[in-house]
Amino acid sequence: MARSVAAHREAVQELLSGLRGRGSNEELPLMAALGRVLAVDILAPLSLPPFANSQMDGFAVRSADLTPHAGSDAGAELTVVDPVPAGAAPMRLAPGTAAPIMTGAMMPEGADAVVPIEQALPDVFPAPGVAATVRLPTTEPGTFVRDAGSDITAGAVALRAGTALGPGQLGLLAALGMTAVEVRTPVHVLLVTTGDEVVEPGTSLPEGKIYDSNGTLLEAAMLQSGLRVTRTGISSDDPSALLTLLRSHAASSDLIVSTGGVSKGAYEVVRQAMEGQAVDFVSVAMQPGGPQGIGTFDGVPFLGFPGNPVSCLVSFEMFLRPALAAVLGSPALRPSLQARLAESLTSPAGKHQVRRGTLLPGGTVRLEGGVGSHLVHALANSNALIQVPEGVTELDAGAEVEVWML
Amino acid sequence: MARSVAAHREAVQELLSGLRGRGSNEELPLMAALGRVLAVDILAPLSLPPFANSQMDGFAVRSADLTPHAGSDAGAELTVVDPVPAGAAPMRLAPGTAAPIMTGAMMPEGADAVVPIEQALPDVFPAPGVAATVRLPTTEPGTFVRDAGSDITAGAVALRAGTALGPGQLGLLAALGMTAVEVRTPVHVLLVTTGDEVVEPGTSLPEGKIYDSNGTLLEAAMLQSGLRVTRTGISSDDPSALLTLLRSHAASSDLIVSTGGVSKGAYEVVRQAMEGQAVDFVSVAMQPGGPQGIGTFDGVPFLGFPGNPVSCLVSFEMFLRPALAAVLGSPALRPSLQARLAESLTSPAGKHQVRRGTLLPGGTVRLEGGVGSHLVHALANSNALIQVPEGVTELDAGAEVEVWML
Repeated sequence: MARSVAAHREAVQELLSGLRGRGSNEELPLMAALGRVLAVDILAPLSLPPFANSQMDGFAVRSADLTPHAGSDAGAELTVVDPVPAGAAPMRLAPGTAAPIMTGAMMPEGADAVVPIEQALPDVFPAPGVAATVRLPTTEPGTFVRDAGSDITAGAVALRAGTALGPGQLGLLAALGMTAVEVRTPVHVLLVTTGDEVVEPGTSLPEGKIYDSNGTLLEAAMLQSGLRVTRTGISSDDPSALLTLLRSHAASSDLIVSTGGVSKGAYEVVRQAMEGQAVDFVSVAMQPGGPQGIGTFDGVPFLGFPGNPVSCLVSFEMFLRPALAAVLGSPALRPSLQARLAESLTSPAGKHQVRRGTLLPGGTVRLEGGVGSHLVHALANSNALIQVPEGVTELDAGAEVEVWML
Repeated sequence: MARSVAAHREAVQELLSGLRGRGSNEELPLMAALGRVLAVDILAPLSLPPFANSQMDGFAVRSADLTPHAGSDAGAELTVVDPVPAGAAPMRLAPGTAAPIMTGAMMPEGADAVVPIEQALPDVFPAPGVAATVRLPTTEPGTFVRDAGSDITAGAVALRAGTALGPGQLGLLAALGMTAVEVRTPVHVLLVTTGDEVVEPGTSLPEGKIYDSNGTLLEAAMLQSGLRVTRTGISSDDPSALLTLLRSHAASSDLIVSTGGVSKGAYEVVRQAMEGQAVDFVSVAMQPGGPQGIGTFDGVPFLGFPGNPVSCLVSFEMFLRPALAAVLGSPALRPSLQARLAESLTSPAGKHQVRRGTLLPGGTVRLEGGVGSHLVHALANSNALIQVPEGVTELDAGAEVEVWML
């Protein structure tokens, strides 16, 4: 009995749950931490903004000076004093005066509001040093003032451990004055492709053999997901050779991923090599990528993906990537959206089908290639995975489908 | 009169159009080319699959041997011959025989179909070397055979120049036997943050000053988009100092981006430094990020972003990133999807508002922080930009909005 996609994803997540507590961190300069995952909570060492500042170009005022009195017009005529210098601590604002102030400049002590230059009469700043007055309207306290700590207050949690560090997060750390940050060391994956029929790219291609694309495809996907990858090269269909290879690397790996040798054929090297290990070979109700190995090899989490390149990518995207997101908080889940099929499709009863496609402007998704899991050229032309749930056997052109953006 | 977001994006795209023909390429090993852009069309040096192979574990047959004759049952009893070895060229299949074959193995000459093992009687493979027969059903020619070239034929265009190289594309190049690929050298951006009020993170913070977050935020965003970045550090509000800095780097840059000093205040260093250059300072009908500089400095394309960090990120995402995608084919456009607002919002008349938010499971988007362009902590908590088009001034909770996933 095949297990559901959701059940297998859950199993992979459970398998990887130990990776959360590895506790191996490193401190990196901000820019080197791009794409990495924060190892610790970051408490803000200062408030943002650090001081009350102006939200507009205008005049810093004491709002009480502009309060209407019985019998008076709204607003008041104030004496213009020296402008607030950008990036400096301004002088105290005396009652009855208004100080020209630029966006972001520190509010003078005593001032509690900013009147934008457009609301002033005249609506231009006087030349510095020239005696001048300005007529300003009634203004509520706090108007166009960014209070100190209104974005975050000193001591508050700025970022939680487990946050993936992108431009916005690194920008925040810089705004807090930081130049380095403690991140988790990447999960170290041992990636083994298997099969007597595959040879390394760059070598000659004997009859009956194909070039290994799984290694390149999966290493690239893993690197993009923040993993560190060791590739062993291609292992033959000799189980003892594969065992030796795995044993020589397992102790230094957080996770082992193999490709090929997991289905029900006569010569399934990964199945053979895993005899005696706590590894299950299961059938997932998914097309492609049905046969899957899962368990531990000498105590190291192990996933056995099928041997075709499209099956490898689909296995990675459907199981390993979401499990890493759930366990480690990174990479982010693939953006999922609804699109309309450009053409009809069929899907086997009792299987969740994952088709490759191109999302077109306007929200239509076009199929790229057929169902064959060897269609790596069609895969290279795709930017989306089309999800056809178990139980759906036919979809017409125009039908709504869930797509994951690659 | 403010220009529309679309008009300014078009102007940025036009400004960058010269980057397309730079013609500066480099050859990189496949894995080093991850995230880079292909410089040339790649023609397939071989067909994929390189040879006809089996799509199933089963028996390779001559379908004519299984054609029903008048008076006979459907199918036939065939003599089982030696299995097709994985990764080798098999012997010719003699009439009246069936060869055990595994998925991906080369079809023997003479065979034109595969019968899955599940349809055979008996439905297990005989032990090698033991004389055996098998009963197989009638089968159409071509059944469960992957034809040579059915994914791509030798000589056809495998990938077009301008394609961004991700896992699928690199996997295809490996499948074609390639180990290196010619990619475009990255666009080289000179990134200058300006302002007397900003200081470098890691130094002490005098009263009235803030740490520069724009440099870190934009460098990270640019690196993620495949650009090469040179940061000059912070330039003061002295126009001649900024001019000297720009002149010393411009000749080696493809693009100059500055932050700050572009609005209508009294001390706008970028405006002042650009006097005599072919640079316009325009007001875009967008909040935040309205004031924008655009043109050329000593012939080098130049963009002047505003000085607040949220304005910088929004300027990058709304203008520079889509323009790079249009001109260079990379980075990919941000995934755009429809979501429902978790709460109401207001937007200024006549402006396209870009709010920051978190897309929640179930398709609801929550606002992160207010409209203030200094709210870098709120930005760091966001994973989406919420697009509120010009002309929309109020949206209720539950309203559908377009969001771009960061």
